[in-house]
Amino acid sequence: MGPHPAVAAIRLAVRRVLHDVLTLAPTSSSPQGAGEPPLVLVACSGGADSMALASALAFEAPRLGVRAGGVTVDHGLQQGSDLRAAEVVSRLTALDLDPVEAVRVDVGREGGPEAAARDARYAALDAVAERHGAAAILLGHTRDDQAETVLLGLARGSGIRSLSGMATASGVGGRYRRPFLGLDRQTARKACMVQSLPVWDDPHNVDPAYTRSRVRHEALPVLEKALGKGVVEALARTAQLSRDDADALDSWAAAAESSVRDDSGDLEVAKLYALPPAVRRRVLRRAVIAAGSPPGSLFARHLEEVDRLITGWRGQGAINLPGRVAVRRQGGRLVIRQG
Amino acid sequence: MGPHPAVAAIRLAVRRVLHDVLTLAPTSSSPQGAGEPPLVLVACSGGADSMALASALAFEAPRLGVRAGGVTVDHGLQQGSDLRAAEVVSRLTALDLDPVEAVRVDVGREGGPEAAARDARYAALDAVAERHGAAAILLGHTRDDQAETVLLGLARGSGIRSLSGMATASGVGGRYRRPFLGLDRQTARKACMVQSLPVWDDPHNVDPAYTRSRVRHEALPVLEKALGKGVVEALARTAQLSRDDADALDSWAAAAESSVRDDSGDLEVAKLYALPPAVRRRVLRRAVIAAGSPPGSLFARHLEEVDRLITGWRGQGAINLPGRVAVRRQGGRLVIRQG
Repeated sequence: MGPHPAVAAIRLAVRRVLHDVLTLAPTSSSPQGAGEPPLVLVACSGGADSMALASALAFEAPRLGVRAGGVTVDHGLQQGSDLRAAEVVSRLTALDLDPVEAVRVDVGREGGPEAAARDARYAALDAVAERHGAAAILLGHTRDDQAETVLLGLARGSGIRSLSGMATASGVGGRYRRPFLGLDRQTARKACMVQSLPVWDDPHNVDPAYTRSRVRHEALPVLEKALGKGVVEALARTAQLSRDDADALDSWAAAAESSVRDDSGDLEVAKLYALPPAVRRRVLRRAVIAAGSPPGSLFARHLEEVDRLITGWRGQGAINLPGRVAVRRQGGRLVIRQG
Repeated sequence: MGPHPAVAAIRLAVRRVLHDVLTLAPTSSSPQGAGEPPLVLVACSGGADSMALASALAFEAPRLGVRAGGVTVDHGLQQGSDLRAAEVVSRLTALDLDPVEAVRVDVGREGGPEAAARDARYAALDAVAERHGAAAILLGHTRDDQAETVLLGLARGSGIRSLSGMATASGVGGRYRRPFLGLDRQTARKACMVQSLPVWDDPHNVDPAYTRSRVRHEALPVLEKALGKGVVEALARTAQLSRDDADALDSWAAAAESSVRDDSGDLEVAKLYALPPAVRRRVLRRAVIAAGSPPGSLFARHLEEVDRLITGWRGQGAINLPGRVAVRRQGGRLVIRQG
């Protein structure tokens, strides 16, 4: 008798990613471990998704000649979080993962509590990966997390890039891998249950003070009720399609940008005008960022104003943008300068 | 003292569209009315949005030398709908619109009750426009309707074209215009109230048997609660950005399609392979539809299977698609034929 279908599903998902990692990094990337099998780490909070991931990695890695380790991040945001982290370390060790460690991070405040915790977490994981020369770090994000991310992106209303959710591979050299992005959360929970793995439910996940928690527990259930059961799947598919679309348009904009620049680097209005609006908007964004405007402060309304120098020209003056960047139209050119 | 801000807003929205219509059609397009001022019709259900629209059209049209008329569609789906239609006709006549008429349609069943009613309605409006030689038909869709449409498209998970909602101009020659797509429903209601216009609330709009009604009354309020008040605006902005992006990618795919075809019209695999996935998927879709596959039966999974003939080639046989279209890979070409 084979494993339970949920266990089979999580193992298959991990196996596919390990195959891919092996193709790219057949041996360890760490100088001290040169020639050794590559090391793959699982980032584990102790919750069901990442515990399921850890169990699947522990099962598959030895069969594929991969070393498997684990890391848990102590955000220090709750009383006793250090004890929790130690507990997760012992659970990962019990799965025969090696090395296993807990890293403590200091969470700042920039961008709100969720963004600050995320930034601190990835910085710590990056450092651990470097230290051990890990070929990859597996993350337990599921299709449900992906759907939530798409809804959060939708709320920004800033276009298809923000609808593309999380990538199956991201970070330096695609270091972060998300094997469960096509699996639902229920499968991960079930896999923990049938393997008798103890799991920990992060109280943040049900705290309505967090936007993601509200999306998960309030918005998505109501959307499913209104639109039908396939909503999570539809959102996840939207993420993939939007990502491909955004990538294609970015590549078009990159090519278009060089073709609209004249010898002195200014942008020719006639050539910009001939581009489709979606491409022109991206070219303008690239050019303004290249001139020194910080991407995070640059909004759609800024680019619309710049675009009107091309499509609604009636002798406007210079448009002032974040980062002391000014755009003016002059002799059939857009001149973009930092002041 | 000027008009109430809500009334000013609806009039401005209509004025902009009338200016645009006048630029395109300075005189009537009807043979019998050649040389006369152009006629613009409002499609009016008697609800707040379209009554506000009718009032704004009645106010602005004479000032711009445009003739203004109205039409209401009797779907015959409710007891007494003919009396309702007659009542709307008299309300439009009271606004000095001329011509005004009610048209009765027979709603079929194809595609579900909402799609069938919509198809019947547009067919009737098209016929009225032709008969009167109308330059445009104004529709009362608001930003809230647009947000609902984006959510409905999102639930399909079929990519950014289904996220682009309704266009400001659509139909033959851009005949249908939606002046209120940037205004919220509340503004239209307010404008009716302050002008003492009687409005009728369609019971379908609150009937939870209709998906759109559930989106309006259940999904959107919860999304606003979870994600913040700007959700409707964010969804409407997503529609516009997605539409521009989808248009740009479609134009790329159209150009790419001709460049990947060889002399006999087959598609060269090496050239397809070099395209970004988002463009390749669209080229394949175009080619398969051109070969006779009905667009409505062609799903993402079909195109993924065809795509694997290019990106995951291991000697697969022909892929059979709706409309008896088969795609096979043969000597570095994709051969697409209807059987």
